[in-house]
Amino acid sequence: VGPPVFTSDRIFETTPAGVVMGLGVSGLGGSALYVESIAQNALGKHSKPGFMLTGHLGDVMKESASIASSYTKSFIAREFPQNRFFEKASVHLHFPAGSIQKDGPSAGITMATSLLSLAFDHALDPTIGMTGELTLSGKVLKIGGLREKAIAAKRSGVKTIIFPSDNKADWEEMPEHIKEGLEGKPAEWYKDVFEVAFKDLDKTRAATRW
Amino acid sequence: VGPPVFTSDRIFETTPAGVVMGLGVSGLGGSALYVESIAQNALGKHSKPGFMLTGHLGDVMKESASIASSYTKSFIAREFPQNRFFEKASVHLHFPAGSIQKDGPSAGITMATSLLSLAFDHALDPTIGMTGELTLSGKVLKIGGLREKAIAAKRSGVKTIIFPSDNKADWEEMPEHIKEGLEGKPAEWYKDVFEVAFKDLDKTRAATRW
Amino acid sequence: VGPPVFTSDRIFETTPAGVVMGLGVSGLGGSALYVESIAQNALGKHSKPGFMLTGHLGDVMKESASIASSYTKSFIAREFPQNRFFEKASVHLHFPAGSIQKDGPSAGITMATSLLSLAFDHALDPTIGMTGELTLSGKVLKIGGLREKAIAAKRSGVKTIIFPSDNKADWEEMPEHIKEGLEGKPAEWYKDVFEVAFKDLDKTRAATRW
Repeated sequence: VGPPVFTSDRIFETTPAGVVMGLGVSGLGGSALYVESIAQNALGKHSKPGFMLTGHLGDVMKESASIASSYTKSFIAREFPQNRFFEKASVHLHFPAGSIQKDGPSAGITMATSLLSLAFDHALDPTIGMTGELTLSGKVLKIGGLREKAIAAKRSGVKTIIFPSDNKADWEEMPEHIKEGLEGKPAEWYKDVFEVAFKDLDKTRAATRW
Repeated sequence: VGPPVFTSDRIFETTPAGVVMGLGVSGLGGSALYVESIAQNALGKHSKPGFMLTGHLGDVMKESASIASSYTKSFIAREFPQNRFFEKASVHLHFPAGSIQKDGPSAGITMATSLLSLAFDHALDPTIGMTGELTLSGKVLKIGGLREKAIAAKRSGVKTIIFPSDNKADWEEMPEHIKEGLEGKPAEWYKDVFEVAFKDLDKTRAATRW
Repeated sequence: VGPPVFTSDRIFETTPAGVVMGLGVSGLGGSALYVESIAQNALGKHSKPGFMLTGHLGDVMKESASIASSYTKSFIAREFPQNRFFEKASVHLHFPAGSIQKDGPSAGITMATSLLSLAFDHALDPTIGMTGELTLSGKVLKIGGLREKAIAAKRSGVKTIIFPSDNKADWEEMPEHIKEGLEGKPAEWYKDVFEVAFKDLDKTRAATRW
């Protein structure tokens, strides 16, 4: 059961807060690779934080999720210290579909964006797709298969694709017929991702939502 | 996905507090091997300490991390007793990139330096690179591959390289064309590393930052 | 990376409190096998006790460490009841170097001595080396390879070697040229080890240090 190759992978026409379209690549080509995260609990005075992870993931991807989680918490603590979401929420992060094995570090920025979207209670523009390894201090590292991912992104209705700055050469070399209708946004640090993905964020609401 | 061999491994042009350049060696030659650590939480009265570790690490390297963590805590308790960072911070230490397997004890002093940099909230000079096994009482033990590491260091913009005193003979025997532009700093105890890496540390601020 | 065989294994010219030279033996001959222990925390009113162990150890050696830890606590409770070290200290015990696998029960008395040295904040004479299995009630049991260990001890600057009374015959049969300059101290119970290793201990300070 591999990802479909020639049809759209768009499983979300509209994306609730917490849902972000990432991009994966396998022997069969690229595909949309959604991340969804939810809070399992109603947030109250006595809520305890937690983190659960599913989606048939390999070890590198599990570590990548814990990096995204730590980065997101430190980002919120630094940039939105009034937002208490991660002190109270029992978060569950999942990669559909459950029968498809997934691994690798390149969904790092997608997971971080999913968690921030949830913490801000802010739904993202569903025409944004992204791929990039995230380090703990927020650096975005090079990934493989940008071409295949761009093809899958376009097929799935993506208009803006965020990728690592270190992949700029791959982007430049890509044929125009693939890039047509796709806006490429290179990111060196996570803040570059943030500026694109959360460009219409109401920062006051985000800070005080929880 | 192995470490790049002939191009610069410098993934950080500037290094935030907690990020330090170590040096690794594999069958493909030497490479920069960054360590980054962050606090996941905002430090407050009720913060609980914690330690998490990622980066596709083998068992020897995991033990090495716990030695670095214990050493750093005892160092702070002895030298900067007012600094309460490790009593309150939920620390996460990571070695990018997530898909490259890493093992061995020679990043010991790099991890300790990363944790101290974070605890002092003091960013390091990004042109310092280092390699050395650390013991619990602060002795710096001999490592392998100093020559390959020095080559990788220079390629990645390092100007000062810290290595174990027991590797001095390796350093002396290294051709001048490799050492040119690199200042070698042998270290017998961690305090020798500290004096080079934190030479411009504001000790009053470091003591009272948290 | 095996232990060096023909050169000195002395990695500590001076030994801080908590550091003791044990003696190991492998297919390559004997070698110095240091134990180091530290307190990770500053000891205060609210400090919690803990015990961590590293050094690439096999199961027998891990059990041996827990025997040494239990014995040491009971020894302090009985002989130095005012000393509260083990009620407050988060102790980490390590065997450098991290990449060398170690196993066997013969570092028992070395570990107990390391823990006592730390609890008394009393540095040992660095020319003492020791080997012996320790039982929970303080009996010192026979070990293998005394000859190889004595050779390694001498090479590493040891002047006094403590070994189990049950190995006395091995000691007697050893050629004089090996024993020359080495004082052998057979131990039947741990108190015999204690009397040699802590002969210059200030017992009042040791009792009231913590």
